[in-house]
Amino acid sequence: EVSNLDAQTSHTVAELPGLVNISSFVPSFDDFASITKASLASGFTFNAFLPQTLEGTSIVDVDSLEEAIDVASHDAYTDFAIYLAGSEQNSQEASDAARNAGALFLPFNAYANSKVSAISAHFALWPENKPIITDARTTDLASVLLLASLHSRSIHITGVSSKEDLDLITMAKDKQLSVTCDVSVFSLFLSQEDYPELSFLPTAADQRALWENLAGIDCFSIGVLPSMVAKALGLEATPGVGVQDALPLLLTAVKDGRLSVQSIIDHFHDAPVRIFNLPKQDAKIEVTLDRRTTVSSIFKNKKAFGSINRVSVHDETVCLDGKLVVSEATGKNEVDTSRARFGSVV
Amino acid sequence: EVSNLDAQTSHTVAELPGLVNISSFVPSFDDFASITKASLASGFTFNAFLPQTLEGTSIVDVDSLEEAIDVASHDAYTDFAIYLAGSEQNSQEASDAARNAGALFLPFNAYANSKVSAISAHFALWPENKPIITDARTTDLASVLLLASLHSRSIHITGVSSKEDLDLITMAKDKQLSVTCDVSVFSLFLSQEDYPELSFLPTAADQRALWENLAGIDCFSIGVLPSMVAKALGLEATPGVGVQDALPLLLTAVKDGRLSVQSIIDHFHDAPVRIFNLPKQDAKIEVTLDRRTTVSSIFKNKKAFGSINRVSVHDETVCLDGKLVVSEATGKNEVDTSRARFGSVV
Ligand SMILES: [Zn+2]
Ligand SMILES: [Zn+2]
Ligand SMILES: [Zn+2]
Ligand SMILES: [Zn+2]
Ligand SMILES: [Zn+2]
Ligand SMILES: [Zn+2]
Ligand SMILES: [Zn+2]
Ligand SMILES: [Zn+2]
Repeated sequence: EVSNLDAQTSHTVAELPGLVNISSFVPSFDDFASITKASLASGFTFNAFLPQTLEGTSIVDVDSLEEAIDVASHDAYTDFAIYLAGSEQNSQEASDAARNAGALFLPFNAYANSKVSAISAHFALWPENKPIITDARTTDLASVLLLASLHSRSIHITGVSSKEDLDLITMAKDKQLSVTCDVSVFSLFLSQEDYPELSFLPTAADQRALWENLAGIDCFSIGVLPSMVAKALGLEATPGVGVQDALPLLLTAVKDGRLSVQSIIDHFHDAPVRIFNLPKQDAKIEVTLDRRTTVSSIFKNKKAFGSINRVSVHDETVCLDGKLVVSEATGKNEVDTSRARFGSVV
Repeated sequence: EVSNLDAQTSHTVAELPGLVNISSFVPSFDDFASITKASLASGFTFNAFLPQTLEGTSIVDVDSLEEAIDVASHDAYTDFAIYLAGSEQNSQEASDAARNAGALFLPFNAYANSKVSAISAHFALWPENKPIITDARTTDLASVLLLASLHSRSIHITGVSSKEDLDLITMAKDKQLSVTCDVSVFSLFLSQEDYPELSFLPTAADQRALWENLAGIDCFSIGVLPSMVAKALGLEATPGVGVQDALPLLLTAVKDGRLSVQSIIDHFHDAPVRIFNLPKQDAKIEVTLDRRTTVSSIFKNKKAFGSINRVSVHDETVCLDGKLVVSEATGKNEVDTSRARFGSVV
């Protein structure tokens, strides 16, 4: 897949499948177009949207999910799925809406009391063939892993950013618990060493542990972390902040010998497709590995490499040298309501 | 075991083995004598002491454990064991002191951060043949159950007082997790219906759930709850508050048809001996089931039945009609340092 096509200038070109963003954050429902355009230009041909906007948790039942799907169907430039948020009260409403949802998202900060009962109720009612994803940390993470195990459910932990949490997940995997996880690309490239005031970033030691245990991390993600960083630094939160930086950051790590192109494909396409039961992307991105590129000022003039030459979907070029060449929002809700969990999908 | 010996007045007499207090609270090390005297008179011939006094956690390493064992060896009127407290930092010191400890007690309120790492460290180092006991609740309970399971350790949950926690433990047992639990006798007979201001008491609904699921509760206990109630009500905390009330409360439930004498034996002798690997008590208590007795004013003039006629240890009478007839503190530290966990003990 990596070839020396561009022989004259010795540039190395690689081709990857369209990447899958499993935790795409829309600040508001007005942003589906801008986020998905930025996604396409950045190599992401699928967005699974988190159920929370800047105004809080918004997708919690049949009506709010239908509304979100409708807006996104009009506006999105990539195919998409939309997650439903599981609250302390809505286990029944959530399961009623499951058919059109991409997954159940359990936002742990939103629970005041009775987390155990609330999570148990969701595990009991949410259909077996639909994934469950959560941002639980530390004790809450241990708790949700136990509940998943007691209910014989698989669970995906998103945005892991500490050695302690990763160790716990690794131990659970060793004991055959059905758990998968992702780490935000921002957590791999920003730490409290860069911004001591941002306590939600991993410590340098935590970040080192993430890199050393990439084999135990199933997926890469983007998530809300880039928006949190931008906000904390007083930067204008452009739509899709973080999306543009993800692939250049990872390709720079490839150039630095810390990562392989295959690992990017594994973590940003193959595992997401498998874990979230999504269609394999009929889409390609062509990158030049060693060509200088730029990343956000958040990374303080980091020297970055890896430019995206072309993105094509269904064999049609949608983006060329950074410029979008599609003008219609043709993204579809890609939640197959009949597909079985972990079923084979082409 | 229940016989109509006292035929003339139709009193029903029952004989029970000496009871085992698995969570005996000493306000200070000066109280071993008074507590164990009150214990003997109340039918408890063995005390396993919690590692916390009124001044906080005090037994955390070899030195503090040796000191406590020395004081208790001089002062105690019952055989005893002493638990060691597992803190956020002392996993190594705790395992060094394990040989002479009755069990490792994990006091969950004492953990600030990093609960998962701290508990994991204890599970990794504490010897396999020694029990681990914890007062974890709700999410912390779920978390500690996961960690016990991941480390293939058994765990005992003390002082369960809510339906939610009991349901979780029951579910864990159903999934073959090695977990046992106890409920304080006070939680069975006092609720927030009696004292709405005492939020640490079970609600009436929680208390109902405890009674309905006695089969899923391994042991009865006393614990710190009686001292907490006495303190909150502004009563003088006499040494052994709660100890005197335990058997009369349970025997009253026998008279009311809510409990059997065999269930008291199961929960206050057989299961504690099995779970905490203690010697079967070579001790007997003779009670008259239907004779009026008194319980603490905490229970608001509750009509109580079941008087203790005689307590004997090693075939010698130690208490007759409420009066202690021993004058020497002959209690021994009964932690057999060679005995295997769950080994057969006579
Ligand atoms: Zn290809
Ligand atoms: Zn419409
Ligand atoms: Zn398509
Ligand atoms: Zn279930
Ligand atoms: Zn007998
Ligand atoms: Zn001495
Ligand atoms: Zn003895
Ligand atoms: Zn272990």
